[in-house]
Amino acid sequence: MTRPDPAGPAVGVDIGGTKVAGGLVTADGAVLRTARRGTPGGSPVETEDAIVAVVEELTGAADEAPVGVGVGAAGWFDRSGDTVLFSPHLAWRNTALRRDLGRRLELPLWVGNDADAAAWAEYRFGAARGAQLALVITLGTGIGGGIVLDGRLQRGAHGVAGEWGHMRVVPDGRLCACGNRGCWEQYASGTALVQTAREIAHNSPAVAAGLLERVPGGAAELTGEVVAQAAAEGDALARELVAEVGHWLGQGIADLSAVLDPDVVVIGGGVSALGEAVLGPARERLQRALPGRGFRPGPEVVAAALGPQAGLVGAADLARSETVPG
Amino acid sequence: MTRPDPAGPAVGVDIGGTKVAGGLVTADGAVLRTARRGTPGGSPVETEDAIVAVVEELTGAADEAPVGVGVGAAGWFDRSGDTVLFSPHLAWRNTALRRDLGRRLELPLWVGNDADAAAWAEYRFGAARGAQLALVITLGTGIGGGIVLDGRLQRGAHGVAGEWGHMRVVPDGRLCACGNRGCWEQYASGTALVQTAREIAHNSPAVAAGLLERVPGGAAELTGEVVAQAAAEGDALARELVAEVGHWLGQGIADLSAVLDPDVVVIGGGVSALGEAVLGPARERLQRALPGRGFRPGPEVVAAALGPQAGLVGAADLARSETVPG
Repeated sequence: MTRPDPAGPAVGVDIGGTKVAGGLVTADGAVLRTARRGTPGGSPVETEDAIVAVVEELTGAADEAPVGVGVGAAGWFDRSGDTVLFSPHLAWRNTALRRDLGRRLELPLWVGNDADAAAWAEYRFGAARGAQLALVITLGTGIGGGIVLDGRLQRGAHGVAGEWGHMRVVPDGRLCACGNRGCWEQYASGTALVQTAREIAHNSPAVAAGLLERVPGGAAELTGEVVAQAAAEGDALARELVAEVGHWLGQGIADLSAVLDPDVVVIGGGVSALGEAVLGPARERLQRALPGRGFRPGPEVVAAALGPQAGLVGAADLARSETVPG
Repeated sequence: MTRPDPAGPAVGVDIGGTKVAGGLVTADGAVLRTARRGTPGGSPVETEDAIVAVVEELTGAADEAPVGVGVGAAGWFDRSGDTVLFSPHLAWRNTALRRDLGRRLELPLWVGNDADAAAWAEYRFGAARGAQLALVITLGTGIGGGIVLDGRLQRGAHGVAGEWGHMRVVPDGRLCACGNRGCWEQYASGTALVQTAREIAHNSPAVAAGLLERVPGGAAELTGEVVAQAAAEGDALARELVAEVGHWLGQGIADLSAVLDPDVVVIGGGVSALGEAVLGPARERLQRALPGRGFRPGPEVVAAALGPQAGLVGAADLARSETVPG
């Protein structure tokens, strides 16, 4: 391979709980080629093997080396981006990921939080373009987040800003995997949708009859997809459950607006595929709950534009912008 | 008066609910002279008259004009700082304060939120010096706040960031003057301390006997000062009430740390005079509630260093740094 063209493509890799997804991404954010592997979470080395395999598959056929490689993963990274402090799905604990991967890839390397990468992609190429202060909220199993202020990703003093899924919104509320109770992501996420559906199905099967007839094995088989499908087909309870997730989303956006006063809030992640069924109630609640409403503007709440590839597109662009001399 | 020395003193004015306090402040943050008037809140013009009177008293005797005038007030300002959107204690509603005052003072003029001014003072001369991301929380009647990131005051996209006193921390909780329920400032502020004390004194006079013997007129006469004094003298209930404010403070700091990940959180305002009686329980709760504790550093929680003059010192320094060409 020849010396890379600085305007050439970069590789972005998004490490999820079940798969390592990679893409070769142009300077304009277009994905030229993709590759994927299952995520072997057992040991740091196995996960790194999968990342290297994806990068090699994407670059092996190319005439020239990519500008750099960006890797986004669900996890908390230190401010320098060198070290994964903790990752819920993977074996990384204070792992010097950038050093370890850098030795094997021999390319400029960015590593960081997957929601930060997705937020950056939405700012550069998606729904947050031109925002002065954009918050990107990814609703999936939990809630992820990224902050872009004045054209820069903000990671906080120790690298872990945007973890608003763990704001406490209900004292003594639902237990969260983080060890606390009442975290926002226990009320506004795919997990929240399923948990509420199962609670109702368990306590009031007659009310949940329309949901239960979709799952032969009973309430335990209810998933976010099942509830979403039922809502799309007009099931009243399912629609109410989706709207309730939207109300909690809107309340949290009101709280974040009190703290940060963003101009744009972008909603991404799997749950955002529910579209207006969740965004409508979120906007409605925000309008009623925004502190100072009537005397101040609130943020625009919009759906993410880039879909599931946001993470790898953003990681590739961060590899370009943060590791390559301009 | 001669042309001002750019390194010379600036005037800072802090407009509270009851008084307009001004000071002549050096480039090092030292207060050379002070002046004050009562706050006539009836009309914008009367408030402006009081500001002009304070500025004239401070500058009339000087050989040279001050570098500029900074005015901080409890209120929400737009991003440009030209307009007061809303002020709880004053008659300003969409008032073009900078234009109106500028015509009368004929000096470089900064106007903005009083908590922002206090935050800036703590960053420049006080407890937040050297912080990468400092949050300054002022606990008084309510909660005010300011954010200093990378050496710059952050005001959000519309000028109203740092209003975290209105994060909802209890669904369907205590009614707030903002029209919402469950706002943080209803649980962690001087008002919260008094309200809880009165509730207990009303519902369980025997439990509150130690407090009630301090107020001949009964529970309605309980004030923050009375409870603070009782706590300082060892009254068990009063100490518990103060600690409870501290616990709510620490929980809110944990929530803000999930969102913003600051390295320093400075606690100012009248309630901070309670010192370790409130800061100790706050740190204890923060330690137990910080999301990701064990895998990440949390912020240092420290008392404000500048006391009640922080607002005017910060306003003066902002007049210098934001209105005078460097």
